Amino acid sequence: MEKLRFGMVGGGNGAFIGNVHRRGATMDNLARLVAGCFTRNMEKNRETAKAWDVDDLSRVYADFREMADAESKRPDGIDFVSIVTPTDTHYEIAKCFLEHGINVVCDKPICLTLAEGEQLKQLAQQKGLEFGVTYTYASYAAIRQAREMIDAGEIGEIINIIAEYPQDWLIVSTVAQKSDQSVWRLDPKRAGSTACCSDIGTHLEALISRMTGLHLEQVLARFTHYKGSPLDHDIQVLLQYEGNIPGMLWASQIATGTDCGVKIRVYGDKGSIEWRHTQPMELIYAPLNRPVRTITANREYNAPACLELCRLPAGHPEGFYEAFGNIYHSYCAHLIAKRDGTSAGTLRHPTIDDGLAGLRFVDACFRSNEQGNIWVPVDEK
Amino acid sequence: MEKLRFGMVGGGNGAFIGNVHRRGATMDNLARLVAGCFTRNMEKNRETAKAWDVDDLSRVYADFREMADAESKRPDGIDFVSIVTPTDTHYEIAKCFLEHGINVVCDKPICLTLAEGEQLKQLAQQKGLEFGVTYTYASYAAIRQAREMIDAGEIGEIINIIAEYPQDWLIVSTVAQKSDQSVWRLDPKRAGSTACCSDIGTHLEALISRMTGLHLEQVLARFTHYKGSPLDHDIQVLLQYEGNIPGMLWASQIATGTDCGVKIRVYGDKGSIEWRHTQPMELIYAPLNRPVRTITANREYNAPACLELCRLPAGHPEGFYEAFGNIYHSYCAHLIAKRDGTSAGTLRHPTIDDGLAGLRFVDACFRSNEQGNIWVPVDEK
Amino acid sequence: MEKLRFGMVGGGNGAFIGNVHRRGATMDNLARLVAGCFTRNMEKNRETAKAWDVDDLSRVYADFREMADAESKRPDGIDFVSIVTPTDTHYEIAKCFLEHGINVVCDKPICLTLAEGEQLKQLAQQKGLEFGVTYTYASYAAIRQAREMIDAGEIGEIINIIAEYPQDWLIVSTVAQKSDQSVWRLDPKRAGSTACCSDIGTHLEALISRMTGLHLEQVLARFTHYKGSPLDHDIQVLLQYEGNIPGMLWASQIATGTDCGVKIRVYGDKGSIEWRHTQPMELIYAPLNRPVRTITANREYNAPACLELCRLPAGHPEGFYEAFGNIYHSYCAHLIAKRDGTSAGTLRHPTIDDGLAGLRFVDACFRSNEQGNIWVPVDEK
Amino acid sequence: MEKLRFGMVGGGNGAFIGNVHRRGATMDNLARLVAGCFTRNMEKNRETAKAWDVDDLSRVYADFREMADAESKRPDGIDFVSIVTPTDTHYEIAKCFLEHGINVVCDKPICLTLAEGEQLKQLAQQKGLEFGVTYTYASYAAIRQAREMIDAGEIGEIINIIAEYPQDWLIVSTVAQKSDQSVWRLDPKRAGSTACCSDIGTHLEALISRMTGLHLEQVLARFTHYKGSPLDHDIQVLLQYEGNIPGMLWASQIATGTDCGVKIRVYGDKGSIEWRHTQPMELIYAPLNRPVRTITANREYNAPACLELCRLPAGHPEGFYEAFGNIYHSYCAHLIAKRDGTSAGTLRHPTIDDGLAGLRFVDACFRSNEQGNIWVPVDEK
Repeated sequence: MEKLRFGMVGGGNGAFIGNVHRRGATMDNLARLVAGCFTRNMEKNRETAKAWDVDDLSRVYADFREMADAESKRPDGIDFVSIVTPTDTHYEIAKCFLEHGINVVCDKPICLTLAEGEQLKQLAQQKGLEFGVTYTYASYAAIRQAREMIDAGEIGEIINIIAEYPQDWLIVSTVAQKSDQSVWRLDPKRAGSTACCSDIGTHLEALISRMTGLHLEQVLARFTHYKGSPLDHDIQVLLQYEGNIPGMLWASQIATGTDCGVKIRVYGDKGSIEWRHTQPMELIYAPLNRPVRTITANREYNAPACLELCRLPAGHPEGFYEAFGNIYHSYCAHLIAKRDGTSAGTLRHPTIDDGLAGLRFVDACFRSNEQGNIWVPVDEK
Repeated sequence: MEKLRFGMVGGGNGAFIGNVHRRGATMDNLARLVAGCFTRNMEKNRETAKAWDVDDLSRVYADFREMADAESKRPDGIDFVSIVTPTDTHYEIAKCFLEHGINVVCDKPICLTLAEGEQLKQLAQQKGLEFGVTYTYASYAAIRQAREMIDAGEIGEIINIIAEYPQDWLIVSTVAQKSDQSVWRLDPKRAGSTACCSDIGTHLEALISRMTGLHLEQVLARFTHYKGSPLDHDIQVLLQYEGNIPGMLWASQIATGTDCGVKIRVYGDKGSIEWRHTQPMELIYAPLNRPVRTITANREYNAPACLELCRLPAGHPEGFYEAFGNIYHSYCAHLIAKRDGTSAGTLRHPTIDDGLAGLRFVDACFRSNEQGNIWVPVDEK
Repeated sequence: MEKLRFGMVGGGNGAFIGNVHRRGATMDNLARLVAGCFTRNMEKNRETAKAWDVDDLSRVYADFREMADAESKRPDGIDFVSIVTPTDTHYEIAKCFLEHGINVVCDKPICLTLAEGEQLKQLAQQKGLEFGVTYTYASYAAIRQAREMIDAGEIGEIINIIAEYPQDWLIVSTVAQKSDQSVWRLDPKRAGSTACCSDIGTHLEALISRMTGLHLEQVLARFTHYKGSPLDHDIQVLLQYEGNIPGMLWASQIATGTDCGVKIRVYGDKGSIEWRHTQPMELIYAPLNRPVRTITANREYNAPACLELCRLPAGHPEGFYEAFGNIYHSYCAHLIAKRDGTSAGTLRHPTIDDGLAGLRFVDACFRSNEQGNIWVPVDEK
Repeated sequence: MEKLRFGMVGGGNGAFIGNVHRRGATMDNLARLVAGCFTRNMEKNRETAKAWDVDDLSRVYADFREMADAESKRPDGIDFVSIVTPTDTHYEIAKCFLEHGINVVCDKPICLTLAEGEQLKQLAQQKGLEFGVTYTYASYAAIRQAREMIDAGEIGEIINIIAEYPQDWLIVSTVAQKSDQSVWRLDPKRAGSTACCSDIGTHLEALISRMTGLHLEQVLARFTHYKGSPLDHDIQVLLQYEGNIPGMLWASQIATGTDCGVKIRVYGDKGSIEWRHTQPMELIYAPLNRPVRTITANREYNAPACLELCRLPAGHPEGFYEAFGNIYHSYCAHLIAKRDGTSAGTLRHPTIDDGLAGLRFVDACFRSNEQGNIWVPVDEK
């Protein structure tokens, strides 16, 4: 099978996420990095390219527009581009590559405003291009297992959803008076109108959506701005899903002593399923009145759609890199299927629709909080 | 030391909670059960009395009023009464014993309405009597350890509080179409205007209050009535504590696959403390940027006020009975100190003020939900 | 039902274990403490009696022989005696009460030598008396659940057994140069020829035996004597059960940082079962190639023989006291059944046969270690 | 920095371990795969090469001898070869590459006999070549953190070591009557004189050695051959380390319901450290009489030598691939330092000395078991 060729915009500043994307994209031997505009500093740009085995240094570009232009003209041009820059630049970059007919994978949130997001979607549709979005937590193999179980009725009708994402980097930074690369996330010009809500709240929204398939209808959000900061650092949100299903969501960047404590619990009338990022390969499945079960992601008893996302024998821990690998695995499989006229099977990855759902969620939460913590419909603009 | 003498109203129907009270009250050899009106059926009444070593069967009463009257006239009458009947009867019974000059320990919630609760408080004050309330979870030794640590500044200033209490008995009952002793909790006439909120939501309110010492100012509550039931079975509440400290609370009786999963997390700017009912003798203490620590309740390094509530060497699990024992231990120590002119040291137990705080919490949540999930002040009547 | 009457020898020195026995014996309303020889100091003796509601102080004895004599002559004399003194005194006391026709519950190890143990057994048989032994860990409800599952074939044929009991009190004492009540356990005259092996190794032997029903045939033991002490503080033992089933056992009193970390894992060819003292109400059941299950002790899905040993609704933690309660519950039920000509149902408790098995285990381990860590048959004298 | 060039022998049969080596070697951008003899089937050989981005297909070899010869003659020949074939072929392949002056990384066990191992060591020394061995579990970042803590005296003097590695693939295979790629491990001709001992027992030996730095002096081993198989499937071993430090080791391939449950506990007189493969980034550190701490591998408070082995911010799980990455990271850093005349800092990886220690351990265990479970010195041939 012929591998896909891809390029990357961003990732050259020592930011860890660029490397995570690269490893994710190449993990399962479906794509190869052949071009990039990793940073504006050409020296660092080339260093990154060499470190990442980009052989032809003429495909290292100082500017993303130049890259889109040049790559779109080559017969062996890139099949897709990965965008891993700060959020405020996503829109321009994604638009540019789509306009040049190049498929896009973009870090979340896909852009700053819903209006921009909808333009990107329209553009991708017009051009017939694939637009993937890297919602990591939603892409662990165990989450797919959960979805298969929920679809198969193993917890019955869903009656409640509780999701949380506590981390503490903001407290750590505040106390240490640090000024690291994360600081752009606190600058309203670069991060958009929200910080915690956009940055990690959306991960929970996507996680719920991909795990349950349910549509979010309304939110009631309360934002906390730590020490009077212009942006939110803790969000507590009541959720209303289709069919009057209640839910509750908490995301925080001031939860001292926590790392990346994503956890989701979905309760049905016949059972419940819990997933925790601290043990990402496990589900806790509690059938009503029966012993609680630990479902491990790469065991024979799993759904085939889950097993497709496992790489190692049971008992060998896979982690964060592999979650990224799952997104790219599906994304690439879809591009290859399109190219070769084959099928990508049961593989699914977050697309621009998930990206838009995230923007709508942020927008609704923001409005709910601004208006005094009232119920706000998510689909209303 | 002369033991206290106590009586009990309720507890004779095979309900587990009466026995828990009895064991709690006698656990540390501070009190002895000498009288009771355990149930209206005199045969069962006497059986219970015999099983529980009430030696003088003339002190087994068919009616609580008769009991209050008779005991208040005896020179060796009871020092206090434990009330373990369904909620709707608490007010009459407590009032009667207080009027007869007898101290009271009452299961929570202490009565159905705030107005009744305030009358009871006034009466107890007028009579100079002690009114204890059995908030169990708030009374584990580890919770006292947490409070001592918080008071000592070990987590700095509190910035967030997350509490939850999932259980699933209602789903179990609904599915099984059971009709057990718990059913009164779903009857508005007997349980009051709320079910889940009164029954277990108040446990969380008390747990937060006793663990942190903070005063709750406002709530925004959303109730879920499962399958259109008149009463609530799931409550999701945004909290506002004094000093603008946010919090979030979830209590549910339809959280399939959970038992009694009380969990509280208090975040400060220097650390956080977590307690889970599944491991009741442990605290998880996470100092900022330092390794997370597991604080076990009966280790030498604990606060003296915590160690006073431990009975076994480290590593020997204590449980639910002992949490009740802690309440009665303190309550009895206070009565004895009063009697003997001594001091009860650092011991503290929930009093009628905690009971009233619980009623105010329920009342405010109820109004918030009724009015469309808006912020409601807790102290306003 | 008429309660049993019992007395106690020992328990008056503030030693925690006496109180644990008392609470265990009275927990389920089957017995009442009416007599005792708690300590040699008559003042403390009476204080203990009062604290423990022994009403007739003429039944507080300065000497156990006097007690045995007096009680055996009363028409309302004790039905059984609980012996909770240091090991070296067990034999004389147990013998005395048996000779006076009084049933016995004895702390483990039942005596210092196998010869003594066999005399006690013979005596009990001749007199037709019940001799119970308090192996606590083996008596948790979850262990009975495990046994029922194993008997029902849920793990298939047993192929391996791994058991451990790490604690650290000796390191703590050594470092702190303490001299507390536990010190007699290090004195060969009082504790017998072994320390760790007798004190906690036997708990593991009994735990395996009661959980699996298997007979131990051979041991190969290595003892570690910390800092050249005359007695052992760590034992590592290879086990050989009937049918050539291998096993491994580790008990230590110098395992720094551990409390009472009893853990047992039984592997069969169709599944495995694990129990840990840190979560005493749970079993981890792993059926071959299926999700691991957490079996909680007081859930409806349990075996009736397990449920009989649970007192609280699911989710309410029971602990160490309740494990003692289970032993006495069964012991008393057997005495009552004998008295009343009824049946004790499925209830079982450790008897003198279990006590003898413990002595044989210690003896064989001691010889194996003395002879250079060789295989030694357990049944050979 | 100029990357190293490496080749691989084996890895082309769909065996997962080849891919793990490739990902490990390239993870931190220190080496690039440029040649290989992945399998004897040239078509599959080339397919693997393409999938793994080997650009020059003339460097895909049908035979390892041809590869060693050709690569040693090229000016841009490989700097090292990774050997990932079954154990019985390691010796010939490693010898061949060493003789051609090419550095070697070899899967463990490095060969079948101690004699062969010593020849390889001698050869590597004569040629001045680096010989790395991939003991994975010993190479997690958390293990290095543990070693740094132990070296710094944080648990005091070591007094006991308990290690285990239960897995169940053999039971699974036996029950399912499978015949997969793992079957060579059960063939004495291909796996050597032992199965479980060589395959996973040696992982524990290496783990203890790297975590503590202690030298193993004697073993007493008992092997279990499941269902009369010629090879061992469960080993239970008493250990004697230098300074009379006792230890105990259990490895099993018939521990039904377990995956890859490596766990090690090291007890000192001032504290203990525990590591479990199920949570590979964590250590449990229990200082004497102080709260137990959870040390997470990529937190600021860690030793620099540990942090060097972490790639993601705290809270993002790394796993099995990254443990391999750590081995290759250090191995490559040493080759580069040698090439460039720089230093590899604190980085350490398992070398042929660790490989030899493994062979000695297996040899001694085998003899101990053959001779009836007696103590056998490890260094004696």
